[in-house]
Amino acid sequence: MTDTPKYPMAEGQEKHTLPLSWVRESGNIVFISGHGAVDENGNFVSPWFEGQMRYTMEQLRRTLNGVGLNFTHVIQVRSYVQHQADIPLYNQLYREYFTEPYPARTTIVNCLPSGLLFEIDCIAEKPT
Amino acid sequence: MTDTPKYPMAEGQEKHTLPLSWVRESGNIVFISGHGAVDENGNFVSPWFEGQMRYTMEQLRRTLNGVGLNFTHVIQVRSYVQHQADIPLYNQLYREYFTEPYPARTTIVNCLPSGLLFEIDCIAEKPT
Amino acid sequence: MTDTPKYPMAEGQEKHTLPLSWVRESGNIVFISGHGAVDENGNFVSPWFEGQMRYTMEQLRRTLNGVGLNFTHVIQVRSYVQHQADIPLYNQLYREYFTEPYPARTTIVNCLPSGLLFEIDCIAEKPT
Repeated sequence: MTDTPKYPMAEGQEKHTLPLSWVRESGNIVFISGHGAVDENGNFVSPWFEGQMRYTMEQLRRTLNGVGLNFTHVIQVRSYVQHQADIPLYNQLYREYFTEPYPARTTIVNCLPSGLLFEIDCIAEKPT
Repeated sequence: MTDTPKYPMAEGQEKHTLPLSWVRESGNIVFISGHGAVDENGNFVSPWFEGQMRYTMEQLRRTLNGVGLNFTHVIQVRSYVQHQADIPLYNQLYREYFTEPYPARTTIVNCLPSGLLFEIDCIAEKPT
Repeated sequence: MTDTPKYPMAEGQEKHTLPLSWVRESGNIVFISGHGAVDENGNFVSPWFEGQMRYTMEQLRRTLNGVGLNFTHVIQVRSYVQHQADIPLYNQLYREYFTEPYPARTTIVNCLPSGLLFEIDCIAEKPT
């Protein structure tokens, strides 16, 4: 996709170029940065919601695994769905990654940079 | 209001259909999901800001009460006010529910699905 | 700047008129309200991104200092950049205030009231 625009925020996979930590911990509370579907070259991995969300969730899984956690440790989620029309699909896919008891969650729309369709950040709890 | 659109996100009252927990706890920190003015049928309870905010705040009160808390235990609030013009009314109504010392707060605009005028989530602290 | 609009949300510097605490603490976790570049009269301090962001970061520094903290204690940041085009400048300026290990971070766009170009809130950890 040569016409895919560069992602100017790039809070996806360009950790080396961005002033953020993917994970910061305080006690057993773990704060995880916003994840989006941007590859190592700063390109969107897909022009479609499902492709972006699946890629993003796999990146989030990797981030969680990196500190010994998985989706079951997440207690709070913030989701950013660019287009309201994608919300039913978002909820459907969401259930493939999270199971009961679900995290507390807030979902908002229309606040992502151009071309980004989904972003997610979360707070997890380390087992003591 | 037969023409009221269904709320596609429905992070209001349709708990049974949504993959979220209204409350998740970690130690004495309590994370509360985004509350909006959507009734059990997925309809907006009012086309006006005040009606939506009052309904939402009563739902939030119920959620807090359900885990033995009330508004005085809330330490951080995120509010989503769809229309900037409603912010003075939002601040006025807000003072009917919260009292000093107020929670830390951030308020943003223009990021709710169509028809939703107000949403709020928060973090509360359980007394030890 | 006589034409500068009043800031209707005014979660900047008008603490006395707003129902919020700039800081709330729970254990060693410190929640900090959204900071914006609004002066004590409710006016924007600058019509430009850099002016607003620098002013805001200095206010945030003051808030942190007020509870014995500084930027190195911040573990999670939420930034609101109104215009996507300002994100490169945002990241550049951000590095003047935060250093490694950077906080976890999420940045969203297009959700600020008219005239506000930057807002930031954060969670910090008090040294024990």
